[in-house]
Amino acid sequence: MDKSFVLRGNICYSKNMRELHTVPRGYLVCENGRSAGVFRELPGAFKHLPLEDFGERIIIPGLIDLHIHAPQFSYRGLGMDLELLNWLDTYTFPEEAKYKNIEYARRAYADFVEDVKKGPNTRAVVFATVHVLATELLMDMLEASGLVTMVGKVNMDRNASPDLQEESAEASARATSEWLADIAGKYKNTYPIITPRFIPSCTDELMRALKTIQAEHGLPIQSHLSENKNEIEWVKELCPGSASYGDAYDRFGLFGGSAKTIMAHCVWSDEDESDLIEERGVFVAHCPQSNTNICSGIAPIRRYIEKGLRVGLGSDVAGGSDTSLFKIMRSAIEVSKLRWRLVDRCDTPLTVGEAFFLGTMGGGEFFGKAGSFDEGYEFDAVVLDDTNLKSPLELSLKDRVARIVMYADDRNIDAKFVRGTKIL
Amino acid sequence: MDKSFVLRGNICYSKNMRELHTVPRGYLVCENGRSAGVFRELPGAFKHLPLEDFGERIIIPGLIDLHIHAPQFSYRGLGMDLELLNWLDTYTFPEEAKYKNIEYARRAYADFVEDVKKGPNTRAVVFATVHVLATELLMDMLEASGLVTMVGKVNMDRNASPDLQEESAEASARATSEWLADIAGKYKNTYPIITPRFIPSCTDELMRALKTIQAEHGLPIQSHLSENKNEIEWVKELCPGSASYGDAYDRFGLFGGSAKTIMAHCVWSDEDESDLIEERGVFVAHCPQSNTNICSGIAPIRRYIEKGLRVGLGSDVAGGSDTSLFKIMRSAIEVSKLRWRLVDRCDTPLTVGEAFFLGTMGGGEFFGKAGSFDEGYEFDAVVLDDTNLKSPLELSLKDRVARIVMYADDRNIDAKFVRGTKIL
Repeated sequence: MDKSFVLRGNICYSKNMRELHTVPRGYLVCENGRSAGVFRELPGAFKHLPLEDFGERIIIPGLIDLHIHAPQFSYRGLGMDLELLNWLDTYTFPEEAKYKNIEYARRAYADFVEDVKKGPNTRAVVFATVHVLATELLMDMLEASGLVTMVGKVNMDRNASPDLQEESAEASARATSEWLADIAGKYKNTYPIITPRFIPSCTDELMRALKTIQAEHGLPIQSHLSENKNEIEWVKELCPGSASYGDAYDRFGLFGGSAKTIMAHCVWSDEDESDLIEERGVFVAHCPQSNTNICSGIAPIRRYIEKGLRVGLGSDVAGGSDTSLFKIMRSAIEVSKLRWRLVDRCDTPLTVGEAFFLGTMGGGEFFGKAGSFDEGYEFDAVVLDDTNLKSPLELSLKDRVARIVMYADDRNIDAKFVRGTKIL
Repeated sequence: MDKSFVLRGNICYSKNMRELHTVPRGYLVCENGRSAGVFRELPGAFKHLPLEDFGERIIIPGLIDLHIHAPQFSYRGLGMDLELLNWLDTYTFPEEAKYKNIEYARRAYADFVEDVKKGPNTRAVVFATVHVLATELLMDMLEASGLVTMVGKVNMDRNASPDLQEESAEASARATSEWLADIAGKYKNTYPIITPRFIPSCTDELMRALKTIQAEHGLPIQSHLSENKNEIEWVKELCPGSASYGDAYDRFGLFGGSAKTIMAHCVWSDEDESDLIEERGVFVAHCPQSNTNICSGIAPIRRYIEKGLRVGLGSDVAGGSDTSLFKIMRSAIEVSKLRWRLVDRCDTPLTVGEAFFLGTMGGGEFFGKAGSFDEGYEFDAVVLDDTNLKSPLELSLKDRVARIVMYADDRNIDAKFVRGTKIL
């Protein structure tokens, strides 16, 4: 019953893509870790619950990061002078190889977990490295943080550096099974996710083995799709029989359908590939900072939304610079404006409300019912103090939220609840 | 003599566009408010000066904002759903009209000055509003802050809202002369600059009068150029006799030459216009955040640099979101990558070192010798503490500076010197 209480404050959340709902000085009820709704007046049925009044502060759902690489947090903001494939070889693979050393992993992952915990995100879908021990350590640390996460031990059995690449498809699959056995039943808020890095680093044999493991355990899947033009050309060479990059996953059953799947990026997915994404119910993790930093391009998010694709946002650290999903919302709006101006006048820019939806409810759907305060949603909430964002104007609640999206950092986070537990 | 001292720390500054120079644990000498140079070992001649040791902290030149609208700080981060001309009519002009009320101006400008003071910028070139009293108040407040600024009372005698537009060219010119008389000899660090808002808001008669005032006082000039395509079309209609938007200033003698001039934006300047910018020695204030936020486009900065144009950076608040020039450097790098990817593969992306140059020495040249630590430069320095930017890696000094450009906020500013005076 300690997960039943009432919060009072200025409440703002998405009800759908088009409706950013605000309730000034409203009541947000948590019952057994789930939202029982938002009210202008507190219904009698909830008057017995403990109430915390946050005054003029703002309460929003926790933000949800659909794509982040935990081991890359160590070099965020550095080495962004290359495109994807060279960037992986030059910066990423040498850094990820270090996570074989568990003491290095402990130090680096502590920084990562601390940073996400003190920010506005409450959930994340995470790439670890190929290393089983370091991945388990990361999951232990994330569980201790109180965040809700899905974490993937990465699979790579070709085209990586020798110190990172796994010995064989069989060794990679075996390590994955060992990892899943080790963590079985261990966590409340931390879940495994099958993680073939991307087509260029996984042989057909490995993909088949991962499908077997995925189906056996009923696990979700995450990977990368159509991020960079050279990458797409390479996939064509590696998989001459595939109709598209997406199809190269799909022919192994690792592309949605019964297996809940996130594909990060989809910057260059054409009509056929986006049809397949739609048919299979695959989630698109839009990573605008990363797509800018490593010169990938600007994904046609307006087109995807109009087509009915499921879209959320990803920080993609260290391709992306910031873990805070506020910064990713801001970036999503910014690049959508440049796309409209410079690439396609049909793709109208994203509004603040739309970006807010993508970073909460849009990504939240991958976790089930998360990212909103409508009744029945899991109770993730962030309380924001925006008094440092001065203005001589009378700002509406929506204006205040727009300013938070633009400017908030960890100083603005006053409290944070995940599944009804206060973690900050 | 209190403006002669030595600072010790990790020193980083641009020597030119291509060379970002670092001296770990070096000595930076200030003599009478100017740099006497940076040294690995302190020369005997300076050993008698007081020395402040900043340990492992980083010391860089103060950052220089070539274009900001002080009265727009109040609504930064809001109302960015329109393009330039509608944005001006809907958000900007109604807000600027409020500065007729001196008490409103006092409240709003206090927020603005406080924000810039606590950030990394030491100098700025500032648009005020048309109002003489509020402009003088702003100059008083900026002088008190210790920052070095050029501030312009804005001139507008057409196409503005009735509550903002000045009565006539003659009234606008007379107000400008009164303003200059009022402030004559009043400040040490605050200078007037002639500020026709842009061609659409200034009649030919006003432009001629401003040229007379400019020449009489030997003042610099600031305005806007080729920001938005609709704006450019409008200027063509208003000035059928001009060869280009730039030429519409030039035919009044308000475009460089003997009059030091900044033109903000230059997003769409063609070959002829950029030739004229080069010939007249006009400074380009590149405002990448603003050009993104109000959908103007991405200026071809690589082309301008290769052509030999003088380029600095501008925050252009409230078209831009942030006053910190670090954020503008970051944005300049980001949009240059998208331009290279999506618009013109000849315009290679800006490096961190190049963006750092633009935000220090590039803009600094407009103030004379500012923006570097080479001998003879005015002594503006910012001391940065980056201990909150954790990493398990051994970072070089250049890496640390790259991370500061990406992530620093006011918490990282440990001390700030302007013209040899410690203001923070």
